[in-house]
Amino acid sequence: MVGNGENYEYGPHRVAIPPAKPFFKGLKSSLKETFFPDDPFRQFKNQSCLRRLVLGLQYFVPIVEWAPRYTFEFFKADLIAGVTIASLAVPQGISYANLANLPPILGLYSSFVPPLVYAMLGSSRDLAVGTVAVGSLLLASMLGKEISPTENPKLYVQLAITATFFAGVFQTALGLLRLGFVVDFLSHATIVGFMSGAATVVCLQQLKGVLGLVHFTHQTDIMSVIHSIFSQLHQWRWESGVLGVCFVFFLIVTKYLSKRKKAFFWINALAPLTSVILGSVLVYLTHAEKHGVQVIGHLKKGLNPPSVSELAFGSPHLTLAIKTGIVIGIIGLAEGVAVGRSFAIFKNYHIDGNKEMIAFGMMNIAGSCTSCYLTAGPFSRSAVNFNAGCKTAVSNIVMATAVMITLLFLTPLFHYTPLVVLSTIIIVAMVGLIDYESAIHLWKVDKVDFMVCMGAYFGVVFASVEIGLIIAVTISMLRVLLFIARPRTSVLGNIPNSMIFRSTDQYPVANNVPGVLILHIDAPVYFANANYLRERISRWIYEEEDKLKSSGETSLHYVVLDLSSVGSIDTSGISMLEEIKRNTDRKGQKLVLANPRSEVIKKLDKSKFIEAIGQEWIYLTVGEAVAACNFMLHTCKPNVAADESNRQADENV
Amino acid sequence: MVGNGENYEYGPHRVAIPPAKPFFKGLKSSLKETFFPDDPFRQFKNQSCLRRLVLGLQYFVPIVEWAPRYTFEFFKADLIAGVTIASLAVPQGISYANLANLPPILGLYSSFVPPLVYAMLGSSRDLAVGTVAVGSLLLASMLGKEISPTENPKLYVQLAITATFFAGVFQTALGLLRLGFVVDFLSHATIVGFMSGAATVVCLQQLKGVLGLVHFTHQTDIMSVIHSIFSQLHQWRWESGVLGVCFVFFLIVTKYLSKRKKAFFWINALAPLTSVILGSVLVYLTHAEKHGVQVIGHLKKGLNPPSVSELAFGSPHLTLAIKTGIVIGIIGLAEGVAVGRSFAIFKNYHIDGNKEMIAFGMMNIAGSCTSCYLTAGPFSRSAVNFNAGCKTAVSNIVMATAVMITLLFLTPLFHYTPLVVLSTIIIVAMVGLIDYESAIHLWKVDKVDFMVCMGAYFGVVFASVEIGLIIAVTISMLRVLLFIARPRTSVLGNIPNSMIFRSTDQYPVANNVPGVLILHIDAPVYFANANYLRERISRWIYEEEDKLKSSGETSLHYVVLDLSSVGSIDTSGISMLEEIKRNTDRKGQKLVLANPRSEVIKKLDKSKFIEAIGQEWIYLTVGEAVAACNFMLHTCKPNVAADESNRQADENV
Repeated sequence: MVGNGENYEYGPHRVAIPPAKPFFKGLKSSLKETFFPDDPFRQFKNQSCLRRLVLGLQYFVPIVEWAPRYTFEFFKADLIAGVTIASLAVPQGISYANLANLPPILGLYSSFVPPLVYAMLGSSRDLAVGTVAVGSLLLASMLGKEISPTENPKLYVQLAITATFFAGVFQTALGLLRLGFVVDFLSHATIVGFMSGAATVVCLQQLKGVLGLVHFTHQTDIMSVIHSIFSQLHQWRWESGVLGVCFVFFLIVTKYLSKRKKAFFWINALAPLTSVILGSVLVYLTHAEKHGVQVIGHLKKGLNPPSVSELAFGSPHLTLAIKTGIVIGIIGLAEGVAVGRSFAIFKNYHIDGNKEMIAFGMMNIAGSCTSCYLTAGPFSRSAVNFNAGCKTAVSNIVMATAVMITLLFLTPLFHYTPLVVLSTIIIVAMVGLIDYESAIHLWKVDKVDFMVCMGAYFGVVFASVEIGLIIAVTISMLRVLLFIARPRTSVLGNIPNSMIFRSTDQYPVANNVPGVLILHIDAPVYFANANYLRERISRWIYEEEDKLKSSGETSLHYVVLDLSSVGSIDTSGISMLEEIKRNTDRKGQKLVLANPRSEVIKKLDKSKFIEAIGQEWIYLTVGEAVAACNFMLHTCKPNVAADESNRQADENV
Repeated sequence: MVGNGENYEYGPHRVAIPPAKPFFKGLKSSLKETFFPDDPFRQFKNQSCLRRLVLGLQYFVPIVEWAPRYTFEFFKADLIAGVTIASLAVPQGISYANLANLPPILGLYSSFVPPLVYAMLGSSRDLAVGTVAVGSLLLASMLGKEISPTENPKLYVQLAITATFFAGVFQTALGLLRLGFVVDFLSHATIVGFMSGAATVVCLQQLKGVLGLVHFTHQTDIMSVIHSIFSQLHQWRWESGVLGVCFVFFLIVTKYLSKRKKAFFWINALAPLTSVILGSVLVYLTHAEKHGVQVIGHLKKGLNPPSVSELAFGSPHLTLAIKTGIVIGIIGLAEGVAVGRSFAIFKNYHIDGNKEMIAFGMMNIAGSCTSCYLTAGPFSRSAVNFNAGCKTAVSNIVMATAVMITLLFLTPLFHYTPLVVLSTIIIVAMVGLIDYESAIHLWKVDKVDFMVCMGAYFGVVFASVEIGLIIAVTISMLRVLLFIARPRTSVLGNIPNSMIFRSTDQYPVANNVPGVLILHIDAPVYFANANYLRERISRWIYEEEDKLKSSGETSLHYVVLDLSSVGSIDTSGISMLEEIKRNTDRKGQKLVLANPRSEVIKKLDKSKFIEAIGQEWIYLTVGEAVAACNFMLHTCKPNVAADESNRQADENV
């Protein structure tokens, strides 16, 4: 090895053609690699039947696995965290239900049943379950296009619950079919742009509450909102505005304080509940509800009523509910799974994305049967949960219990809660989601990612949430397609005093080998890029020929294709190689392959391309290939037998 | 070099970080690589203004380029080829128009103007232009869903012409925007399956003509067709059937003969015209048209009437026309460009796919203004053209002239041509398109490609042409997405007596290095596969740990990631690497990178990952990385400083 003085003077190595696997064995292993990359069932191997049953139960219902190890120490931590997030869950639940144009009580219902379901099935220890701002906004904007929440409130609620049901079914199906990778196609850049845009839009919507406006546009784009606000100048209520500005100031100060000193996190966590209490007391004392400050009003006492009969499967708007369900389901997953995953990485435990999807799905299906709407794992609440020191999902159970008590006994207390306070809570939470720091990072590291992010952001802000989402997904998909359609190729040169060959672009010190063109292909060769590669490689060859011709040096005798990075090839790719071989043969050049990989060499063998090119022209390394070319160049003329090319096109008249 | 006895005992090489390119220069070069891989304008460099103008004209109107070099020898060859394909074009034109439920005369019109346009603009020397079976069938099935060709024939023709116009516009746009790669996403396997399925369906449809049925299903799936045939047993006309069987026999025998001996190709080429003449004479003499043998009837004399006023831009069915135009436009391109390309490869000249698209588009726009419907480059006619020895696109001009003479003087001769003869011509042409040999080849070489092909085939045959197309495109897209979402990873081992590291799967002789896990990633690392790679790499690591633990050997100290095949990375990919680094640091393992490529090292540098991992842990080759690990293992303990991990999750309440 290097430095050990071991020499490198053995003859060229043979490229192995791995033995053909039986078809079904190969299929099984590639299906396993595709759908079970993390090998979730490895603990089931070599176990007795009973043990497997227990393990299976623990796999699908994680609480069975960790409950026996639960200690009182854990409970103390979870109790504190649970009460903290409950103090956040109540005002946030009411605010987000407001944002979704749903009755406020639905927001409280949604913080009771779903957290309990998640505590049983979820594998994250830090995720706090609840309604989410972006999901609520999407729900309102998609359903609102066909049904007015003010004119037909009953149908609107039914459709919201039906959409939640389908979101749950879709999420569960994705998880069961192990199609979690669908969510991966929403890239980080897309999500940053989309979430920031949605947060901006949500903030703008809150100006309705802050300015005490009664009528407001149903559009979410910035132009409509600004127009709606300034066309109603005379309707602005200063009482509401003053309250709003005060509470925004209060919430921002507490947030700032808690960021300054870690022990103050609870100031931040309790601030929303404090605002609600302060605001309600103030309104009660000053009777401000009679002077333009809108309040929540009557909230029904009692736990979630069943809502199975509300699922509107027979409604003519069923298609809309299904479409809305799929979109909010994916957005819920994208946020929830990402949040769960980042805390898991932080605390060094593992989260199975597909299992999480099933948990989210079951939670939404259960929710849709108990008068809840879409729930996921909001980042703000989960961060508070984490900072409050939660240990397990029991903090969700504690939160649910606290919400239950609220539902049973405390709802009348919210009668005088001013809407403006809820708006300020949303505004401050949303401003934190506008992730300009990530955008700056994207700009520094990857300009394309930055453009994707901005596309999503401006799409949401200037058009609508759905259009922003469509733009974001389209750009992401186009990027994936371009990635695969346009792989890079590069010319390799010899690093002086070594057998190493590297791209001459990256290593200007690398020298070309006279008479030999060494090309490196950077990606699997598939139907999607075979045509491109053929054109690009032809261009490399004639550019090299031109260069050699103009410099009057030796002509081009060998074309070495370095296939190290070609992980796989399909029949179109093989045709492409065959064409390149025909072209080089015709010009009296010899095509040489270096380091074809397992998948590639197998297919080249089956398609008889190895026979055509000659096994002796396939080398294990570029170095060996070039050495052989040099040897031939200096001892004898290249013996290229031009192809007979007497194949006939069929006459299919 | 190997065999030259040159030794390899220099110290490790530095991985170069290429200098940052200015943003717009980088953007320009990557746009060029994306849209102009073949560098079509390289001949324009360093030329005078006038010369550029001439070159530009030659570029966009290729006939200007080759016409001055045209000789009488060429003309003789083109004349023979042109007359031969004209003898095929007339009956085929009438048959395919029949298949599209359009008046037969439109088939003749379509063989007059479009070939002239293509002769000016096209770059293929062998393509024979005309209507195509699959395009005709698609047109009929898509338009037929909304408009009945029997009840509303005028509107149906208008929509067909409008769809042709939009097909032309779409094709031209694809070419001008250099988006030719869109067509590449229809893989060879998809096209084989789709075309074979369409050919099967077309054959089945012809049973209507052969059995002399008057009423027939408008569905194309095999079940509807079989039901339609056997529910009308008593309507079968034996006269028609006998004629049909005779002519099929005649055409197959001529085809067989011409395949046996190459000089007999003209037997095959002239057989359709002979059939038409024989059939017409027979009907005329026996008055069979009064005994159940349907005939073409009256054909209007005269050249193409202008049809600009027929373009139905104001029609309520405009959306349908646009949709149909896009679908048939793509299908026309996929067949035409592939046919042109394969003959070009055969005769060793170059075809620019994007330019071909413009030629096809202009030809269809011109056609839609002169009463033609969709034209492309049918394989059967082009193969005859090729075998007849055509030299340039002049053969298309000769064909157009022959069709013109037919239109002006000979149309009355087709009055007694029996429809059954046209059906047999289609059947025999279509049977040749059922490419079972390619399917067998796909099965042998690539099972997934075979499944794609079968999916498309059965989709077309058992459902409908559109559903078959949707299945085919969906499978192709899913494959592309899976390709990128599930890259392979493999463990590398040392090939004995060398510095070479290769996959232990492919080379069982390769030895693991104790205490060092070497992983190779096979594809660019993007948002679409970053999550998968993180899970898969973690699994490799713990599998290796398990193996070492159970064997009681040394524990795992180094994880070497071979990035040779990672051509590019985005911000999600970098986060993935950062997570892997955090995980290995936590376990006291050291992450080492080998051979990061130009794009990758640039981004790793910008995102400060190089600083985090340490420049000294990035090596040019796997061999050098492993040598360094071994050196550290044997001289000192790995100095892994566990990350402080004191990053805090933001409290965004």
